[in-house]
Amino acid sequence: MGPIARSHGKEGGASVSVGVVGLGYWGPNLLRGLVEVPGVDVRFVCDLDAERLSAFARRYPAATPTEHYEDLLADPQLDAIVIATPVFTHFELAGAALRAGKHTFVEKPFAPSTAQAEELIALASDRDVRLMCGQTFLYSPPVRAVKRLIDTNELGEIFFISSSRVNLGLHQRDVSVIWDLGPHDFSILLHWLEEMPESITAVGRDSIVPGIHDVAFMTMQFPSGIVANVELSWLAPSKLRRTAIVGSNKMVVYEDGTAEPVRVFDRGVEYRDPETFGEYHLSYRSGDIRSPMIPSTEPLVTELSEFVRLIRAHETSAELELARQVVTLVESAETSLAHGGLPVSVGEGPGVPPSLGSAYGPRARITA
Amino acid sequence: MGPIARSHGKEGGASVSVGVVGLGYWGPNLLRGLVEVPGVDVRFVCDLDAERLSAFARRYPAATPTEHYEDLLADPQLDAIVIATPVFTHFELAGAALRAGKHTFVEKPFAPSTAQAEELIALASDRDVRLMCGQTFLYSPPVRAVKRLIDTNELGEIFFISSSRVNLGLHQRDVSVIWDLGPHDFSILLHWLEEMPESITAVGRDSIVPGIHDVAFMTMQFPSGIVANVELSWLAPSKLRRTAIVGSNKMVVYEDGTAEPVRVFDRGVEYRDPETFGEYHLSYRSGDIRSPMIPSTEPLVTELSEFVRLIRAHETSAELELARQVVTLVESAETSLAHGGLPVSVGEGPGVPPSLGSAYGPRARITA
Amino acid sequence: MGPIARSHGKEGGASVSVGVVGLGYWGPNLLRGLVEVPGVDVRFVCDLDAERLSAFARRYPAATPTEHYEDLLADPQLDAIVIATPVFTHFELAGAALRAGKHTFVEKPFAPSTAQAEELIALASDRDVRLMCGQTFLYSPPVRAVKRLIDTNELGEIFFISSSRVNLGLHQRDVSVIWDLGPHDFSILLHWLEEMPESITAVGRDSIVPGIHDVAFMTMQFPSGIVANVELSWLAPSKLRRTAIVGSNKMVVYEDGTAEPVRVFDRGVEYRDPETFGEYHLSYRSGDIRSPMIPSTEPLVTELSEFVRLIRAHETSAELELARQVVTLVESAETSLAHGGLPVSVGEGPGVPPSLGSAYGPRARITA
Amino acid sequence: MGPIARSHGKEGGASVSVGVVGLGYWGPNLLRGLVEVPGVDVRFVCDLDAERLSAFARRYPAATPTEHYEDLLADPQLDAIVIATPVFTHFELAGAALRAGKHTFVEKPFAPSTAQAEELIALASDRDVRLMCGQTFLYSPPVRAVKRLIDTNELGEIFFISSSRVNLGLHQRDVSVIWDLGPHDFSILLHWLEEMPESITAVGRDSIVPGIHDVAFMTMQFPSGIVANVELSWLAPSKLRRTAIVGSNKMVVYEDGTAEPVRVFDRGVEYRDPETFGEYHLSYRSGDIRSPMIPSTEPLVTELSEFVRLIRAHETSAELELARQVVTLVESAETSLAHGGLPVSVGEGPGVPPSLGSAYGPRARITA
Repeated sequence: MGPIARSHGKEGGASVSVGVVGLGYWGPNLLRGLVEVPGVDVRFVCDLDAERLSAFARRYPAATPTEHYEDLLADPQLDAIVIATPVFTHFELAGAALRAGKHTFVEKPFAPSTAQAEELIALASDRDVRLMCGQTFLYSPPVRAVKRLIDTNELGEIFFISSSRVNLGLHQRDVSVIWDLGPHDFSILLHWLEEMPESITAVGRDSIVPGIHDVAFMTMQFPSGIVANVELSWLAPSKLRRTAIVGSNKMVVYEDGTAEPVRVFDRGVEYRDPETFGEYHLSYRSGDIRSPMIPSTEPLVTELSEFVRLIRAHETSAELELARQVVTLVESAETSLAHGGLPVSVGEGPGVPPSLGSAYGPRARITA
Repeated sequence: MGPIARSHGKEGGASVSVGVVGLGYWGPNLLRGLVEVPGVDVRFVCDLDAERLSAFARRYPAATPTEHYEDLLADPQLDAIVIATPVFTHFELAGAALRAGKHTFVEKPFAPSTAQAEELIALASDRDVRLMCGQTFLYSPPVRAVKRLIDTNELGEIFFISSSRVNLGLHQRDVSVIWDLGPHDFSILLHWLEEMPESITAVGRDSIVPGIHDVAFMTMQFPSGIVANVELSWLAPSKLRRTAIVGSNKMVVYEDGTAEPVRVFDRGVEYRDPETFGEYHLSYRSGDIRSPMIPSTEPLVTELSEFVRLIRAHETSAELELARQVVTLVESAETSLAHGGLPVSVGEGPGVPPSLGSAYGPRARITA
Repeated sequence: MGPIARSHGKEGGASVSVGVVGLGYWGPNLLRGLVEVPGVDVRFVCDLDAERLSAFARRYPAATPTEHYEDLLADPQLDAIVIATPVFTHFELAGAALRAGKHTFVEKPFAPSTAQAEELIALASDRDVRLMCGQTFLYSPPVRAVKRLIDTNELGEIFFISSSRVNLGLHQRDVSVIWDLGPHDFSILLHWLEEMPESITAVGRDSIVPGIHDVAFMTMQFPSGIVANVELSWLAPSKLRRTAIVGSNKMVVYEDGTAEPVRVFDRGVEYRDPETFGEYHLSYRSGDIRSPMIPSTEPLVTELSEFVRLIRAHETSAELELARQVVTLVESAETSLAHGGLPVSVGEGPGVPPSLGSAYGPRARITA
Repeated sequence: MGPIARSHGKEGGASVSVGVVGLGYWGPNLLRGLVEVPGVDVRFVCDLDAERLSAFARRYPAATPTEHYEDLLADPQLDAIVIATPVFTHFELAGAALRAGKHTFVEKPFAPSTAQAEELIALASDRDVRLMCGQTFLYSPPVRAVKRLIDTNELGEIFFISSSRVNLGLHQRDVSVIWDLGPHDFSILLHWLEEMPESITAVGRDSIVPGIHDVAFMTMQFPSGIVANVELSWLAPSKLRRTAIVGSNKMVVYEDGTAEPVRVFDRGVEYRDPETFGEYHLSYRSGDIRSPMIPSTEPLVTELSEFVRLIRAHETSAELELARQVVTLVESAETSLAHGGLPVSVGEGPGVPPSLGSAYGPRARITA
């Protein structure tokens, strides 16, 4: 069976053979997850570090270890490649995989630029192979539970969202904390809100390593009026992954990794119009707090199962556009960061908000 | 004894007679606090609401109730006036008190504009009477404990500060959440850091009452390189007053109102220069966590005792300049808020950061 | 109007005049509470400590201060006496009050012995005056919320209850921690379960003051099969007031003084009989967690309002029997404590459980 | 090399070959731990369940799977056997292993009775092979940190200890919660205090499965005067593993599995003798709270490394006596449980405390 036949879908009965590239921080998790997905056969493990490679070869005796990425590309029996290397290599490695007719899974962030993300998407479409970006939080049960609360209108109109994702470590060598942690929050926000922000601001500091921002405070303004604030840091006294979603009917606190990851607060303020009262009137409402039972399925396994399902069903990933948007948001945030927190029109480089445009004239929007 | 004699200091033996103006939300607390300060005699309670006034008159039978502020100004026996009215009345009421030769205590925020704050300071100096602004957090034991940790260099170099002050309620009718809650964080930051920020950004939303922002996310950049983020909201699922201070040696979490309001984390990252290693090296350090014993003195009583001490010692308040700076910060934040989060050079209206100045030209700094 | 007329009820229009005896730890709280109950006139404050007395006289100028309890008994205008003195004085003071025809409120614990409690109840009945024991937790909104959960069978069958009431301080001089803190838990348990335990055990230690137990661990077995464990201590690293109620349908955690004092866990284990499966089968169920909104009314004021209501309605307190049972439980626990934790048949002195009676013979039940 | 030679110690260079028996709940953890101990070679995995066996065989291809325990006993190349089967099989399986000259590791609880525990110890001594009981908490870093606080007298005199170990599930089919969870607390207490309790009480309930107690409240009194309370349950709204240790100088809270497992409270009460003051005087002391940094080594691996070290060093385990005492405590607690909470003299069956002995006569101590 040649690559073209494979790319047209995989029979339900045959197992999908996969090669994993990059065994650093996240690759081993993907490897462990793949082993738990039924119908997956890990055929290759690939890394440039020989010692690391042999360690994994011992643990997964059925997989062939190799330092040569070309071995994966050249193997006609290999269906898919899972890439967990540093972000600046994603474009080259994923591009080669797609051109070799392999279904391709790329860890987040999808690509180092919007342009390259778009090129990968076009390439996958052109070659008719599956392409997916690993955005694990989209498969996280608490994130999905919050999505349902939003979609069923239990929260009412969303006013704003405030999020902190901080911890002590682990500094990345080549990218800022926005490239490292930002995709988590960006993907969650886009998944929940289904709209792109109009503008973004980012202020931060390279406290430890010159040039590598290890803390960033970002705000986003959405067309619907929603405001979101995201704090990211590798320098924090204690781990905190907390998101508050404030709606007109109810409010939610989502804290990842705790015993009660989603808490729904039946609280709010009612506004009655001045027309009725002469003066407007506010009434505060405070009801029960509820922690819904959240299933404990592992997001990583669900995500990899979805990749396999796409291959078998010969279906295009519904999240590629979101993955591209995440890259655009990281780019825009980095632009704002580089310009001292100037609001940036998303996707266009830094600029002043529309309302101020005339004051600044045509030069107000500079190219990143 | 006439007003001029009084303004030159109060003998240790004689009690200081005080009138309290405004018995709404905070005034009753000041009244209760004044009763506990030795050597204070509450001579007047003053409010425009007759019913409220008579309620307090019953509770404090020694004080004369009046709806007429002039009664206080005209009484030669009255040494001092304590003002707890809405902010837009501060300038007029405090100005009249100072001109009448009364020592004057004004609740925060000091005045509705920097110009008016400066005028009040000049007036007090001119008449040689004491003027003080009620910034209670400057007398809070946990805030002072953190100040000592900073001053003794136990935290090392401060990298950044991240603060949240949120709760459900209570909306102010006439001012935004920045005017209402911002002075708390601004006064604490100025007290700790002893420097004014260069620039500030603020993004927020008027979720409930049109035109009254009930949530705001602000960032400040200080000349020393410190970055501060402050989240303020009257709309939150649960009360949170949490500030993280990240230093090069240690980190602190200050949570007001909890059993352990100050927690010191002996954590950090050591950076070793690339010169030594070819490539830079980071080592993570994680030691003990300590909750220092914090005395439980009530800040409000300490603050009012300081006002009495200033009167007796005929001494100028050391915090007037800080009170004025707080007003300037609120003004600057409001300007940024009104311009979609544009960074504002503090004290100058909105503008682009210096590094971008040339790109925007002379029009980049607009008048608020 | 003479005492006899008064004891037959108080007209709705006339205010109830009250004297408060004992201004130590709890008396001031009762005083403050009484002032907030409509239709109450505090006519006397009484204490043996002249300095303390004059301090309260200044704060409550309408009340007459006196060191002589007889002044209260002799005043024909006085309707009721509120007693907040040490427990060993309760019998004498309350007895005198009842005999003088005064409605009487006695702080918990009701009396130093069951016999004396019964004598007071008989005396009140005989004189036809109101008698009430201050068991504040019976008026606590969270305690009442749990009561409703039990009464509506939302929890199912109660299996067991585990409670901790610990803090650092405040040692009593004359009685053990069981006399001091035990009545809280005993009154709550009797209120919830509406049955007396059959037997009680208590083990503890007099860690600091010889002869005064400052820690005690107690267990109770109820006729219905319920088991309750109560830990009491004046020596604890941090304050903890936590009660877990485990039922067959749901479980509850009640933590007094926290933001969410009642939490309902929809959790349990289903047992299926071995008949069906050959071997029995257990299935674990884990659903939502809910913190019902609890009103924030102050129990002390509700309790004192009830005392006034009883006087006006000429009604006998429904909680006198419970107050007597609490004394019996304290006595029984003290007996077990004195005998190294031997199970004590409640109300009968120490003894072995019925099932072991024959092994021990008639000497097994000793007189306390 | 024959079994006798092996039992005299293992050369440092040669690896120790181990067979693991029982792959139910805990066995897989031991298996995973053994793989991480350097110099260990897992030669056999043994279980009666063929399906489970083949699953582990696939995961550990180097180990021989077998359903026949005799295969392990008969293999002259096998140095040691690790037993993780139900407690009632421990005596038979461990006895056979020792008699076959194999070094033997038995999971807790050591044996179903004190007599059988003693017989195993004697057998190991007789055959001169290593015997060890798996009491993982003795190797837990937080437990050891508390031990150091006690040994260095930082806590002062220990007054009492209060412990809760509760969760929802997992019911054992054949033994009570005391046999299941009690050995954890008993081993920790004996390790810390280095003394056996004089007496023990236990009260509980078989809420779900008739005859299987799923909740138990136990107290212990130690010769030194220390009192300990232990709450065990498989029925609890939320997981709690909390132990408070109250000393005369400081107090400690140990909460297993939390971010700060050991917290040291510098709190206490000073007692000054009545001789000096006429009346005794208490002063309350409240200082800093400290969470010492606790290393994150895995106890299971440390424990298994110790087993290997004993084999290589030809050294007798220092914890065998403690393991036997744990069995005695479980037995005594079960006796008290069966007699309605009657205090049991440890090791002697139920009885009244010494002080009451004369009141009960010789019949007071019955045989279990």
